[in-house]
Amino acid sequence: MRRIAILGSTGSIGRSALAVADAHADRVAVVALAAGENAALLGAQIARYKPRVAAMASGAALDRLKQNGTSSVIFAGTGREGLVAVASHPDADLVLCASSGTDGLEAVLAAIERGKTIALANKEVLVMAGGVVTEAAARKGVAILPVDSEHNAIHQCLHGRGRSEVRRLVLTASGGPFRGRSASDLQVVSADEALKHPTWRMGRKITIDSATLMNKGLEVIEAHWLFGVGGDRIDVVIHPQSVVHSMVELTDGSIIAQLGVTDMRLPIQYAFSYPERWPALLPPLDLARAGRLDFEVPDTRAFPCLRLAYRALDAARSLPVVLNAANEIAVALFLEGRLAFTAIPHVIERTMAAHRPAEVATLGAVRGVDRLAREQAQEIARGLELKSEV
Amino acid sequence: MRRIAILGSTGSIGRSALAVADAHADRVAVVALAAGENAALLGAQIARYKPRVAAMASGAALDRLKQNGTSSVIFAGTGREGLVAVASHPDADLVLCASSGTDGLEAVLAAIERGKTIALANKEVLVMAGGVVTEAAARKGVAILPVDSEHNAIHQCLHGRGRSEVRRLVLTASGGPFRGRSASDLQVVSADEALKHPTWRMGRKITIDSATLMNKGLEVIEAHWLFGVGGDRIDVVIHPQSVVHSMVELTDGSIIAQLGVTDMRLPIQYAFSYPERWPALLPPLDLARAGRLDFEVPDTRAFPCLRLAYRALDAARSLPVVLNAANEIAVALFLEGRLAFTAIPHVIERTMAAHRPAEVATLGAVRGVDRLAREQAQEIARGLELKSEV
Repeated sequence: MRRIAILGSTGSIGRSALAVADAHADRVAVVALAAGENAALLGAQIARYKPRVAAMASGAALDRLKQNGTSSVIFAGTGREGLVAVASHPDADLVLCASSGTDGLEAVLAAIERGKTIALANKEVLVMAGGVVTEAAARKGVAILPVDSEHNAIHQCLHGRGRSEVRRLVLTASGGPFRGRSASDLQVVSADEALKHPTWRMGRKITIDSATLMNKGLEVIEAHWLFGVGGDRIDVVIHPQSVVHSMVELTDGSIIAQLGVTDMRLPIQYAFSYPERWPALLPPLDLARAGRLDFEVPDTRAFPCLRLAYRALDAARSLPVVLNAANEIAVALFLEGRLAFTAIPHVIERTMAAHRPAEVATLGAVRGVDRLAREQAQEIARGLELKSEV
Repeated sequence: MRRIAILGSTGSIGRSALAVADAHADRVAVVALAAGENAALLGAQIARYKPRVAAMASGAALDRLKQNGTSSVIFAGTGREGLVAVASHPDADLVLCASSGTDGLEAVLAAIERGKTIALANKEVLVMAGGVVTEAAARKGVAILPVDSEHNAIHQCLHGRGRSEVRRLVLTASGGPFRGRSASDLQVVSADEALKHPTWRMGRKITIDSATLMNKGLEVIEAHWLFGVGGDRIDVVIHPQSVVHSMVELTDGSIIAQLGVTDMRLPIQYAFSYPERWPALLPPLDLARAGRLDFEVPDTRAFPCLRLAYRALDAARSLPVVLNAANEIAVALFLEGRLAFTAIPHVIERTMAAHRPAEVATLGAVRGVDRLAREQAQEIARGLELKSEV
């Protein structure tokens, strides 16, 4: 029996994870849940799965939850402390980190310190603190199982193959809703357009990241930390159908790829069942029906975020933290309609340029760089803000 | 150092194998060679690789070889005895069986009995005597490494995964030169047209088998023996670009695929290097440049040979032997211009119908069924022969 804690249980990944738990009720027990602000849904999840503990992002959300009357559960707290308590619960042996942004960082480290397997669906954890997290995981002998479909694919392709057998990782990217558009076309696209992802249904932040290709950039950095491969050996290929989830090129030129339907329940189940495999809960991929798979080189002129991510990874040290922080600020402003789509990479690039790279060997150092970068990004973004149309 | 014996060194696979040996001269020693009738080329190979022993198919060929003056080598004999002697040479630790047709059967068994690793590029060996050969290999703890690109791909995709993790094998097929043609279109195609394979350059017999899809049918039977999976769990998908070499669908619905350039040196090198991987000798696959991969369901109405192969595998026992024998007869007559392309499956189907299935637990039994089936196929084909145009 897998006893799981879920950070971010009311989000897209969290709900898919609970669907996997439903389908494999004889194999998965849900022992702890943490959510953001959606008290109604967390209340329903508590009633259904009866976890030992639960947490919410804010006191206000927790109050709403308590009003719904969920007496059977112990409330573990709010904010990062709540996440840490849920991730540390002694009954959990696997922690799915699917909270968005950087709030899950301390919780993931706390879970690693307690020897729990990590199923990681959150990119920011490794982008910000890849060194700290992977070092801790190695020290404690803890497995980090990637849930992101691309890294999950690479994990499956590697299947125990040593690093010496690997020449290159190839991450596939759908290209997002603006594939094929030129840089000038992109000046006027709206948040609503950017939120229409062609193949994956995901949260708002990650959907915008897919439209800018920053999502792929963050994945390049994440792949570096997960698989110990330098940026010069991680490639990105645009593959609009999202059927090939990613690939590994081996030293002899052979490529191993993982393919599947575009449904996050598949990689989540893989992480829950690893190293076993459980029966499919979805109809299998029908390649003949898919018919056609396309591949093309990414356009980093129209989508400079991908280039920025490589640059941050090459410089390493604190620069990926700055990249991520500036991106979060810029995306939030874009979603509010205050920044043009094409201003997102500008904010990031200028914030990176304003930053003096430093070592980030502790979580405190990471948080410090992150805070400063957010302030700088806000400042830089202010000069780029769109005039109100009124 | 891998010390290899090659059965069929002057054929397409044999020459590719020697190219691999050239590229990895520090890793591969060629210790024994057997060829068919091409004395000039075998002479040149002997001069270059200085094997301990060599053999040719016929006494006449051997005489031609001796006239060329290749005094450094010991002639191991002719025909099946020559193949057995080459495959059994004590200095060889890996035997590449790339001789065409069924002549290599005794040689493969002899090599297995001496504990040598088998690199198998010949389908007929397993189609005819899969039970006998795999039983002997299991008893001696000998690995059979498939060199056929499809089975080689599956071997790479499995990478030690257990049978319980596998739901389905998916063999890709280029579809051959007549993909998309209807059954009536195919009545009038010539041997020259059938010999124009779109993606792979191979020998004549196997190229015709690709055009009829019998090649894929034989591969289904071969996959059954190599990987212990029933015909109901082996599928074929048409993939004209031959970039995805084959796939494995796992129990959770995930598909692992192997991709690469269409060059037999890749799977040959894999077999020579296994379980290691040696550096690439070819530029890697550029998927973005390939651009597009297509997949479609095979048309078994226009290409009934595939259906016949499944039927033979389901019936098992002696029927695959009959299928193979009748196919060899029919293809030879087609290449001579004496049989229509569409008559090939007719000859096979009628020969299968005329056969009473029996157990084939020994090589003697296999040879007996084979001989009888060839006679019956000849007889049946006679009634279908094309009128001379003169």
